[in-house]
Amino acid sequence: MELLKKRIQSDGKMIGNEIVKVDMFLNHQIDVELIQAIGQEFHNRFKDKQITKILTIEASGIPIACMAALYFNVPVLFGKKYISVSNDDSTYVSNVYSFTKKQKYNIRVSKEFLNEEDKVLIIDDFLANGQAVIGLLDIVNQANSTVCGVGIVIEKGFQPGRKNIEEKGLQVESLAIIDSIKDGIIYFT
Amino acid sequence: MELLKKRIQSDGKMIGNEIVKVDMFLNHQIDVELIQAIGQEFHNRFKDKQITKILTIEASGIPIACMAALYFNVPVLFGKKYISVSNDDSTYVSNVYSFTKKQKYNIRVSKEFLNEEDKVLIIDDFLANGQAVIGLLDIVNQANSTVCGVGIVIEKGFQPGRKNIEEKGLQVESLAIIDSIKDGIIYFT
Repeated sequence: MELLKKRIQSDGKMIGNEIVKVDMFLNHQIDVELIQAIGQEFHNRFKDKQITKILTIEASGIPIACMAALYFNVPVLFGKKYISVSNDDSTYVSNVYSFTKKQKYNIRVSKEFLNEEDKVLIIDDFLANGQAVIGLLDIVNQANSTVCGVGIVIEKGFQPGRKNIEEKGLQVESLAIIDSIKDGIIYFT
Repeated sequence: MELLKKRIQSDGKMIGNEIVKVDMFLNHQIDVELIQAIGQEFHNRFKDKQITKILTIEASGIPIACMAALYFNVPVLFGKKYISVSNDDSTYVSNVYSFTKKQKYNIRVSKEFLNEEDKVLIIDDFLANGQAVIGLLDIVNQANSTVCGVGIVIEKGFQPGRKNIEEKGLQVESLAIIDSIKDGIIYFT
């Protein structure tokens, strides 16, 4: 998606050779017009999949999922993150390791909102090692729902997230795939 | 807003006489069509205020702010919540007490995205004691921005949030004001 790649190049902040911060338009301040275009692009790529629900994770996944949901005309469901070990029978829980924060956390989704009739599109802002997406997949599996695909805004192509998800037989669509970052310049595949 | 009140009555879960859970359409699963109508209603109420930015707080405020932003054609900025005491010079920070969680937390907003030229609309899902909104107001004041109003989806009219904000001279617009909850039935003002 050229519009997105140009925006990352103009407003992303490269930190070393592995990190790009997009707080200017995606992760803190949100350019809703851009996010709407992103939502429409996800619809273009998954519109034939008879999606019934979009699943994402708080907080940065929410605006993207909501804008996409406008085009799919389905509800959004967002996984809640929490550190504590408390649990109850009303939720699906998956335990995820964050490489960024070097910490484990849980994702929780109420059983009420996901069932075996749901055809789920998973959406997230970043794909690096794929741990968050794999946690969401685990929750969809616990609910006996069907995953119809994974939509990612920015993929770090030099990390193993895509491989980890594709080996489960799933379609991964990333709107910008970073090949490398060198001397403050970002290269897309 | 009648559509919203009816939805709270049909899908809200009353817990005792003070709590209504709206996880079905606002706080966990999101009915984007309803949230879009809510965003449009906020635009109706604040469209003459020359808003330049919508400020909210993660996570439930984000979808509402984003849908409103589509009508205002301005960016959204969301405050990040965190517990730790770490701080740095690049962010505005306000310390907030959550009555719900009986815990203090910090709201953090990057200085990069809020300045003295901004005319800010604050949006949040619930207004009870008003602590989160007062934290956001504190951040807007630190940035020397102007607050043009506060938009709330569901206000608990029996708690002092509105009073606490109005005494700062601000316009508060709530789309559904709960007068009381008795025997599992919700009454609006």
